[in-house]
Amino acid sequence: MKTLKLLNYAADQWVSGTGDLEEVRSAVTGAVVAETGASGLDYAAMLDHARKVGGPALRKLTFHERALMLKALGNAIMARKEELYELSYESGATRSDSWIDIEGGAGTLFSFSSKGRRELPNGRVLIDGAMEPLSKGGTFVGQHVFTPLQGVAIHINAFNFPVWGMLEKLAPTLLAGMPAIVKPASQTAYLTEAAFRIMIDAGVLPPGTVQLLVGIPGDLLDPLTCQDVVSFTGSAATAMKLQSHPVIGRESVRFVAERDSLNASILGPDAGPGTPEFDLFVKEVAREMTAKAGQKCTAIRRAMAPAEHLDALEAALAERLAKVRIGNPRDEGVQMGALASLAQRDAVRAAVAELAKSARIVAGDPGAAPVPGGGAFISPILLRADDPWGSAAVHDVEAFGPVSTIMPYRDLDDAIALANRGMGSLALSLFTFDRAVAREFVLGAGAYHGRMVILDRTSAKESTGHGSPLPVLVHGGPGRAGGGEEMGGVRGVKHYMQRTALQGSPDMLSAVIGQWLPGAEKKTGDVHPFRLRISELEIGYTLKTASRTVSLEEIEHFAHFTGDTFYAHMDEAAAKANPIFDGRVAHGYLILSFAAGLFVDPAPGPVLANYGLENLRFLTPLYPGDSMRVELTVKSKSVRNEEMGEVRWAVQVFNQKDELAATYDLLTMNMP
Amino acid sequence: MKTLKLLNYAADQWVSGTGDLEEVRSAVTGAVVAETGASGLDYAAMLDHARKVGGPALRKLTFHERALMLKALGNAIMARKEELYELSYESGATRSDSWIDIEGGAGTLFSFSSKGRRELPNGRVLIDGAMEPLSKGGTFVGQHVFTPLQGVAIHINAFNFPVWGMLEKLAPTLLAGMPAIVKPASQTAYLTEAAFRIMIDAGVLPPGTVQLLVGIPGDLLDPLTCQDVVSFTGSAATAMKLQSHPVIGRESVRFVAERDSLNASILGPDAGPGTPEFDLFVKEVAREMTAKAGQKCTAIRRAMAPAEHLDALEAALAERLAKVRIGNPRDEGVQMGALASLAQRDAVRAAVAELAKSARIVAGDPGAAPVPGGGAFISPILLRADDPWGSAAVHDVEAFGPVSTIMPYRDLDDAIALANRGMGSLALSLFTFDRAVAREFVLGAGAYHGRMVILDRTSAKESTGHGSPLPVLVHGGPGRAGGGEEMGGVRGVKHYMQRTALQGSPDMLSAVIGQWLPGAEKKTGDVHPFRLRISELEIGYTLKTASRTVSLEEIEHFAHFTGDTFYAHMDEAAAKANPIFDGRVAHGYLILSFAAGLFVDPAPGPVLANYGLENLRFLTPLYPGDSMRVELTVKSKSVRNEEMGEVRWAVQVFNQKDELAATYDLLTMNMP
Repeated sequence: MKTLKLLNYAADQWVSGTGDLEEVRSAVTGAVVAETGASGLDYAAMLDHARKVGGPALRKLTFHERALMLKALGNAIMARKEELYELSYESGATRSDSWIDIEGGAGTLFSFSSKGRRELPNGRVLIDGAMEPLSKGGTFVGQHVFTPLQGVAIHINAFNFPVWGMLEKLAPTLLAGMPAIVKPASQTAYLTEAAFRIMIDAGVLPPGTVQLLVGIPGDLLDPLTCQDVVSFTGSAATAMKLQSHPVIGRESVRFVAERDSLNASILGPDAGPGTPEFDLFVKEVAREMTAKAGQKCTAIRRAMAPAEHLDALEAALAERLAKVRIGNPRDEGVQMGALASLAQRDAVRAAVAELAKSARIVAGDPGAAPVPGGGAFISPILLRADDPWGSAAVHDVEAFGPVSTIMPYRDLDDAIALANRGMGSLALSLFTFDRAVAREFVLGAGAYHGRMVILDRTSAKESTGHGSPLPVLVHGGPGRAGGGEEMGGVRGVKHYMQRTALQGSPDMLSAVIGQWLPGAEKKTGDVHPFRLRISELEIGYTLKTASRTVSLEEIEHFAHFTGDTFYAHMDEAAAKANPIFDGRVAHGYLILSFAAGLFVDPAPGPVLANYGLENLRFLTPLYPGDSMRVELTVKSKSVRNEEMGEVRWAVQVFNQKDELAATYDLLTMNMP
Repeated sequence: MKTLKLLNYAADQWVSGTGDLEEVRSAVTGAVVAETGASGLDYAAMLDHARKVGGPALRKLTFHERALMLKALGNAIMARKEELYELSYESGATRSDSWIDIEGGAGTLFSFSSKGRRELPNGRVLIDGAMEPLSKGGTFVGQHVFTPLQGVAIHINAFNFPVWGMLEKLAPTLLAGMPAIVKPASQTAYLTEAAFRIMIDAGVLPPGTVQLLVGIPGDLLDPLTCQDVVSFTGSAATAMKLQSHPVIGRESVRFVAERDSLNASILGPDAGPGTPEFDLFVKEVAREMTAKAGQKCTAIRRAMAPAEHLDALEAALAERLAKVRIGNPRDEGVQMGALASLAQRDAVRAAVAELAKSARIVAGDPGAAPVPGGGAFISPILLRADDPWGSAAVHDVEAFGPVSTIMPYRDLDDAIALANRGMGSLALSLFTFDRAVAREFVLGAGAYHGRMVILDRTSAKESTGHGSPLPVLVHGGPGRAGGGEEMGGVRGVKHYMQRTALQGSPDMLSAVIGQWLPGAEKKTGDVHPFRLRISELEIGYTLKTASRTVSLEEIEHFAHFTGDTFYAHMDEAAAKANPIFDGRVAHGYLILSFAAGLFVDPAPGPVLANYGLENLRFLTPLYPGDSMRVELTVKSKSVRNEEMGEVRWAVQVFNQKDELAATYDLLTMNMP
């Protein structure tokens, strides 16, 4: 393979670093595969370009437009995935390891694209929570919103997932409307560069929205401000060094860290040998040790079992690990490839030596070279700590390779305490079929773990396993895991936006957020709103209907017609005895139905269907003889495509005293 | 007044500091009012007590139980508020200044109590967001939850709001289920100690849940872990010093900072002299300068006006400020008291001198002593910077007293840029009656400001003004303001909890979170669920109804009865032409009504009323001749008091092909 000369992508140009370049070697053969560096690049100009060109371009787009961009990027990656698989072998990864990286990365783009279109508005401001009334007269209210940060997201990525690591950070960043500068780890930067190039080639990203640094051009943090975000994945040592940079405190720069942690997996007290959960546990621990040669920040480092089952666990794991086929990841049937580099293997050996001071190796040989040649191969190594409270190392020292330690626990409290002794983790798994055990574990250990997977015979087959972060769930954890959160669907998008509490009159805030708020002006007109397309419907436009009375005969008729003869509608004495009603009342569903009868304009037109209802509350009962009228107001609207869009209507039903009988949001599909 | 000997409250005992105590002097007379200190206290033992006694006690309570505790604390403060008002005069505050501190503090407890009971479950786990399907077969799903952190919240408070500052942090902390150690600033610790004592005397807090340090017993941060939270309010310099403590990065200790900032207020381009907004602006700037003698972290420091209105603004402000009556806050008619201390006055004078290098003083005299005697009095000082882009100081240097700078802007973009030049603020206000101006300002400046108040003739009368943080809105801001968030209703509670992504089967996760999830087991029984009290209703208990067909006659009858003759129900050809339907369909409201007819058990019993509906979606249309049946499942339940509680039912309506026609959550009030 020809040595790759990696390029940076700065201000929409591919640029090589100057001066001495760093050599990157194949994990499998030790040969030089790439040269990389970013010396001589004008980092300040890159930041400036992102701030002045990329940010404004992204902020002009709506969430839906940005979401469609992510989908196009995912499609571009998928169309050229084989180029990436081919390169990825050099990193020591098997095809199945790289599936997580490459197709998992594209899948993350697709997931954020889909969430963006389903859960975010086709607009540029994200409304957060309900309006807060702040005054008696209703002229002063509050509403939280999110708007995109106006700086740059600096993504500093780890070597182990060069494609996914980039994409899981880029997806929420771009969806939020923020440009990014991506800085991969040198060891696998050739894969990041290749995936980045595919995205640029796709031609869907506005200028200035993404830039790439395949080396370090200077102090990455010094020129940052409160509008920038640093999102770091990697070792605890580097995270701490970056986090203590004076700019972080001075400018309150958002710093998100995702650090590897001593993740635990627990065999439940109910899950002894012979149970399906025992077998699942053995399989999962072995899989987590060997997938990506154990170089996953979520991998199981501590496997805990009831003391009486530890021998059985050791035997089963040792047997399983002995069968793992280690070798060149290009070779058919190989299950575990190499570590990312010889330096990485040295680091793993050193960590194992540290662990072996208070635990003993019961399978594998850290000193052996299981595959001949210059590659960074190592065998899976299982340690056993019979006195887990007597060994600090097993809870604190991470060997970032195919290495785990098994340890016994006395009872559930002890297991919870041991799990929490890791002082914060990304992922914990618990193998139990006992729901009480699961509940106790979550209450006792939740505060220490960012993700907790409970696996049993029911869910195992479809489970994504202990170690897989998913785009719809938060990835990150407290303490040792860095204290950060990434992804989690829309939650992750907010990491790149600022929440602001707005205060003002309902009219003013409605205009600012593009949504009608209770108390804001209701504009009326001659045209029934069902005769208007989405583009013609003004926020706040209101239909005020005529009123009708609700008679006892109608209530009785409705009861017999629908079958809903609940006593509160049918039996005066029983209704009076009820603590809420003063006598027989109209059905809530009758009020809803009559309301539609009052506001619906029946002829074909722009309204296509009522697809749902939200936040319905019955506030004042309607008694026989009461009358009702409706105010139907355009609350918000969102065009989905050329055929359709959604309109959300605020519906208020009043009685003859102008008291609110019911309020709800009506959802309709309309023509754009 | 006798010198107060302030005590610490450690491990449920009142303890005095040993060794040299710090003297605290009256802001008004300069006489010693208190001695304070915490030397000799066993801080490690206090942390240990909170972790082992206070935390577990709080975590045993439900959110509602904790919320009721907050209400009792608020009542205790209100019952003895005059004791606090009396003490507060010594801090230089007028009664109206102290109203914010004392009654505003109690109000914050009441607000969190109310939010806690309305928006949080009567349980111990807070569910976050919707269930996430993670597999095709539905056996593996995700659900986010929050559980309380298991450590201690260290609250480090500023001198300016000794009561509110304690309570705005304690309310969300205790509601979350976390114990706290409160460390007030020495200068006004006597007020904090008095308010703290009132809460202890109330006898409603479990042992170990709150402790007080009226001095510093050692390194407050060194023994902390990822389960602890530091919430700091005060100067940028101290915040940065604390934040760079090695434990923060090493253990990922949550650090929330609320620092004073160079808050801006902007007179809109439409709001020249003669408009109501101009008058409101003058009044608000003057009020913000003089309330609490300008010692508010949210006070207006930079007042911006269109260049052509700056002279008019200067004249109006100078006239208004000249009338402010400064003096002993105990004296009738005094509008502005003293700064908190002579040291504080020295700091204000130094900052004014710095500002005066690039702005000129147009009202007030920093060197004068407007009130004779030993008090820390100063007159309001107005500066004017005609070249605001030529003066860094006016955007960076804060005089924490009755000091503001007025400056001109050219156009709206310039005003936005100047506002953002403060590099992050707690609060911004904009005086405009032009909705387009407001929208442009929020989009352009939102990312730099934690709260934005838009004031005009409509909202001014009921407005709480520029500077008031409110418990239901977030308080905090990016950059210079510290990057933290406090309060904001339930948002603030989550700062003291850990979010965890749970994965597992719907059955398992339902058991863990105490809520039925789609796909979880539906238990059936002989008893109709309407015959069971809340205590007897099991989560997942399901009524499966008989089925009924929906005929064309019924659809037509319903249409004429309700008046809802929408064409999709009445006109076969028109319905067929609709892109969603294949012909005439049943009304959504008919489906809801027939569903109730199928599941309602009519006789009086534990179900009292249907009070609402949530998340209704119509998924498959019902055509004439289709049949429908309902599954009604207990999703969650919450007892409110001895008479009533809420039950949330998952309702699924199926057609004859077992396709989902509609799903929704039904809300009923039930007997406990």
